[in-house]
Amino acid sequence: TPRDKGLKGILCERAMPLFLLITDCKKKEINKQGHNTHLYSSDFLIVRRTLEFQIKITFDRPYKPAEDKFAVEFVIGPSPQYSKGTYIPVFPNEERQSVWRGRIVETSDNVVTMGITTSPECIVGKYMIYIGVVTPYGIRRTRRDPSTDIYILFNPWSPADPVFLDDEEEREECVMNELGIIYHGAYDDVSERAWNYGQFEFGVLDACLFIMDKADMPLSNRGDVIKVTRVASAMLNSRDDDGVLVGNWSGDYTYGVPPTSWTGSVEILLDYAGSRGTPVCYAQCWVYAAVFNTFLRCLGIPGRVVTNFFSAHDNDGNLKMDIILDENGKLDRNRTKDSIWNYHCWNECFMARSDLPPGFGGWQVVDATPQETSDGMFRCGPASVAAVKHGQICYPFDAPFVFAEVNSDVIFYRRQKDGTLEVVKVNPTHVGRMVLTKAVLHDGRRDITDQYKFPEGSPEERRVLEKAEEFGCQREKASLPQSDVEVEIPTLDVRVGDNFDVTLQFKNHSDQRRTADVYVTGTVVYYTGVPSAEVDEKVLVRGEDYMHKLVEQANIHFIATGKIKETGQIITAMKVITIHNPKLIVKVTGSPRVSEEMYVSVEFTNPFKFSLENVDLRMEGPGIMPFKRKQYSLIAPGTSIMWTETFSPRRAGSTKLIASLDCAALRQVYGETELTIQQ
Amino acid sequence: TPRDKGLKGILCERAMPLFLLITDCKKKEINKQGHNTHLYSSDFLIVRRTLEFQIKITFDRPYKPAEDKFAVEFVIGPSPQYSKGTYIPVFPNEERQSVWRGRIVETSDNVVTMGITTSPECIVGKYMIYIGVVTPYGIRRTRRDPSTDIYILFNPWSPADPVFLDDEEEREECVMNELGIIYHGAYDDVSERAWNYGQFEFGVLDACLFIMDKADMPLSNRGDVIKVTRVASAMLNSRDDDGVLVGNWSGDYTYGVPPTSWTGSVEILLDYAGSRGTPVCYAQCWVYAAVFNTFLRCLGIPGRVVTNFFSAHDNDGNLKMDIILDENGKLDRNRTKDSIWNYHCWNECFMARSDLPPGFGGWQVVDATPQETSDGMFRCGPASVAAVKHGQICYPFDAPFVFAEVNSDVIFYRRQKDGTLEVVKVNPTHVGRMVLTKAVLHDGRRDITDQYKFPEGSPEERRVLEKAEEFGCQREKASLPQSDVEVEIPTLDVRVGDNFDVTLQFKNHSDQRRTADVYVTGTVVYYTGVPSAEVDEKVLVRGEDYMHKLVEQANIHFIATGKIKETGQIITAMKVITIHNPKLIVKVTGSPRVSEEMYVSVEFTNPFKFSLENVDLRMEGPGIMPFKRKQYSLIAPGTSIMWTETFSPRRAGSTKLIASLDCAALRQVYGETELTIQQ
Repeated sequence: TPRDKGLKGILCERAMPLFLLITDCKKKEINKQGHNTHLYSSDFLIVRRTLEFQIKITFDRPYKPAEDKFAVEFVIGPSPQYSKGTYIPVFPNEERQSVWRGRIVETSDNVVTMGITTSPECIVGKYMIYIGVVTPYGIRRTRRDPSTDIYILFNPWSPADPVFLDDEEEREECVMNELGIIYHGAYDDVSERAWNYGQFEFGVLDACLFIMDKADMPLSNRGDVIKVTRVASAMLNSRDDDGVLVGNWSGDYTYGVPPTSWTGSVEILLDYAGSRGTPVCYAQCWVYAAVFNTFLRCLGIPGRVVTNFFSAHDNDGNLKMDIILDENGKLDRNRTKDSIWNYHCWNECFMARSDLPPGFGGWQVVDATPQETSDGMFRCGPASVAAVKHGQICYPFDAPFVFAEVNSDVIFYRRQKDGTLEVVKVNPTHVGRMVLTKAVLHDGRRDITDQYKFPEGSPEERRVLEKAEEFGCQREKASLPQSDVEVEIPTLDVRVGDNFDVTLQFKNHSDQRRTADVYVTGTVVYYTGVPSAEVDEKVLVRGEDYMHKLVEQANIHFIATGKIKETGQIITAMKVITIHNPKLIVKVTGSPRVSEEMYVSVEFTNPFKFSLENVDLRMEGPGIMPFKRKQYSLIAPGTSIMWTETFSPRRAGSTKLIASLDCAALRQVYGETELTIQQ
Repeated sequence: TPRDKGLKGILCERAMPLFLLITDCKKKEINKQGHNTHLYSSDFLIVRRTLEFQIKITFDRPYKPAEDKFAVEFVIGPSPQYSKGTYIPVFPNEERQSVWRGRIVETSDNVVTMGITTSPECIVGKYMIYIGVVTPYGIRRTRRDPSTDIYILFNPWSPADPVFLDDEEEREECVMNELGIIYHGAYDDVSERAWNYGQFEFGVLDACLFIMDKADMPLSNRGDVIKVTRVASAMLNSRDDDGVLVGNWSGDYTYGVPPTSWTGSVEILLDYAGSRGTPVCYAQCWVYAAVFNTFLRCLGIPGRVVTNFFSAHDNDGNLKMDIILDENGKLDRNRTKDSIWNYHCWNECFMARSDLPPGFGGWQVVDATPQETSDGMFRCGPASVAAVKHGQICYPFDAPFVFAEVNSDVIFYRRQKDGTLEVVKVNPTHVGRMVLTKAVLHDGRRDITDQYKFPEGSPEERRVLEKAEEFGCQREKASLPQSDVEVEIPTLDVRVGDNFDVTLQFKNHSDQRRTADVYVTGTVVYYTGVPSAEVDEKVLVRGEDYMHKLVEQANIHFIATGKIKETGQIITAMKVITIHNPKLIVKVTGSPRVSEEMYVSVEFTNPFKFSLENVDLRMEGPGIMPFKRKQYSLIAPGTSIMWTETFSPRRAGSTKLIASLDCAALRQVYGETELTIQQ
């Protein structure tokens, strides 16, 4: 191989008495298994901090421990310095040890096998290796040999490493699993989609390290998981630093890939690194979170994507989300900023927090979606989930913001003619209704709301809200009379394109007649008159009305607001209706074995009465198929397409093929199939 | 006056039933006195938060409280919004109040005097005022009238304001005093210089508000003193955000003003704002701190400049300052970064910290000198001084960095040939030797070291250091044998250009002969041999050797290091020798009365045997003279110059005239004189 040739070249240089290293390929495999790095597609040695790895050094004569003095030198970055941790010599003798430990494992002829143990806070990245030998002529060093470069990663298997996660199944899921599920939709009608994190794919590790380079992150900070995750939360979005992903919520994705179209992180990261840092178009929250998750798992930081249903944002750290009504109780769209998201995805990463008092380590929120600037940049976290749960939001970073995302009250104001606002209703339970993440090692959901909040109405919950107020989170204190009329919008099962009825359920708790003017926005419909104690009123929502604007997120946020004529009381209801899209049918044929050729077909039928134009399909599968793309210029009403591809699985194990379909008129159409590859 | 004309123009517009405001000039003076804003050179009304101020509104007929409905509307920024605090209507009637309170103080004919009380967290800045009147045709508003714009500032006199400082003398000093003293030199030989903060000078308030505009700071954050001071600490330096001042420590100031030459902040701030944000050249720490102090006092935030003698910096939050020696104990200049500053100036500002648990309000460190990035930007603080003292450095912002500045150990390493470092001596008392600030209302020094640290060697000090280590501040733990030889460098009184002897005092605690190789750097001199138990050895330092490189800061940092031959022990000593510069003689003649013409002369004699070329003199005096400048192309050896200017004091009271002289061969030459102006 070319690498052996290079080594021979160096071995010919006879001026030095003792000589050069090889990281033996077989050793490399042994190292990788022990270090849980065997899945990385890479020719380089990849190891984790604090666990010993072994390298073989071939000298030009047998090594004599008593006389020969050498060190294995690890160097990272352009100006290696011992005190900055960018130059680390490792010695083979017990009595002489630096911050990393060295020992001779075995000596055989000219070959010395050396065991090296890195320190738990050493820099994470790609190191160069040299051998320095003490000779009568001074210290002589081997030449640079790029093939012996080595990657050192965080180590969640090591109790000494701040990212230690003491649960093998959780580690398998949150570090080693390339397949993810991301939840969206509504808390009472949850949708899900598969994602290929692809943290072990060829080039992804280099792309993740490149992100820190692009951020000009000092090397000496790159062993600190707190700083690494904070920098990444800023760099995953392109705002203010030319980071990885450009956000776009406009509905117009002409000059990039629609956020709904991606099926995995690999294409995005390789694009970004391949262009030396040109931001990739486009992302919305789940794309930021999914690519961030790849970054975390790739570097060895346990990470997971979570979804918060009804997430407050853009709120200056106050616990108030404002909905402004006019004098008649009708929603004032111009003055109501879109300050509640039907759902929002962020990441959690697992680490000790040595910068905080005990009790705030563990899962930390980091969020790359550019919502609010944190201390001058678009980034968020790491914020301790435990600190959020207990209202201890005085600790860095951005805990008040995360606290508000799950705890804000929704405040309905009536706007007076003179511009002042009067509070007419407070809904304290709408925001942060549920927090979900994928279950460990199977495809189910895991409800982790209780990690963020004490139960609704419990004394602990009240105390936590009071604590947060002490730290400056302002809440609305208006005590409002209970309205004697209630309105609700029940859940609906809607397929895309269907007409459907939004039902308003009114409950009159008084013994008197009540009349209401009620406005429903979402699609704006006017309704008047509630004659009796309990009544359902229906509003017809037609497919043709919502198809061209609201399908992107495949759900419609309805707000019903109104005023009771007799009492002047304001009644409100909020509901997200999830529009269920058709699915792609993904089928696999052939023998599921490593390196065997197999076939996959993706099938779709246009269910609408109109043609779909410029339809983009994507497909990929971790370990079995790199991302592929196919375009159809037109799919006529009622007609079907079938896209077939061949692939050869690269490795054994259980995996998925994930496909998406996307066009301007229909987004968020997914399909997947599971398969298990035999060796 | 033109302003009256404008108002008449509006009064002619007869379509509206009720009418327009004047902030009556006499009222303006009354407001200013009560609000402690009478010193600002400004035609506008300037008031402080939470204290009532009064404006007069002139309508086109007498106001009828029962029928007429109006509001005074305060508007700041381009998109006024009630919920963001950028639109505030104020009503005259008790039963209808918004976040700011209003009341009718007096009605007389067409003129209504209204009292307005702002909220304690309202935005600090320049507001526009309108009157909105309810008419049969809807709400009608007065036209924009720039002359009625109003500035609202922080209020340290108000217990409701987070900047409340409950000490009238401290407020007089830290908010109202335009004259400052900045300490420098060495802790055992302190020098001082006067500074004109000039926070009340014409244009300075607008310049300070412009800094927040230039930072794109959201308006809704500008009522929050924590955010305002943090943004300012980033914006006062030009790094990463085109802030106010460009740092330069190179000794070459050809393209700007040498940091030592400035005598006040006014010129700098007016330059910056006048050029719409072109950074001003050049600054070092005391210039950053002095201009930052102007910003703080100008906006009403109590502020002071402090000097920390032997300040650690550039240290990644570890409590170690590294000095690297070679195998012989000689200082390795290439590997020892200049990581201890003889002194460093920063600011303290006074505020409640609602974002932290109780006990951490009060004085907060903010620092605009670009040393280290804080969270990705060059800025520092606000960090609670109490948190630093108690090692509670888990709270934002940058407390670990400030803690290291005053608590780091100096670690001497011997560098082995293989690149590893061995700790040979630890000096735990060198760094943070003394923290000084100007005394309250007189010109003395105030030692505030005890605000930052418990006494050296006390049990509290040990506990605090342990606490800081729990939060990730790493300390050196090597336990080293006590050396039986000590070396010291005693203090010297040196005038610039003098030859002087640096004496090394050795003390041999053993009863044996000791021989040492000792190196002194500063100017590097070699010395060998210590024959007896106690001995002084002298090293001659010649004026011609240090004149051309070391005079800028007017002090030389000597490090003596050496190795005892018999024991191999390392001995070290560190000393700053302050070189005393000649003074300018500033004399005033004439009658010290407001508006009388007076004369000031600045005298200087070149004490050297060489000519001084391109000599720049500056002079200014708060309230009596704007900054003036004079250049001399040559001052021959032994000759004197005398610069005379006339001035007319603008206001009564005690003040100073401050002058500086600066040229490439001689910097840091100052003079001043006090004078009291009669009304």
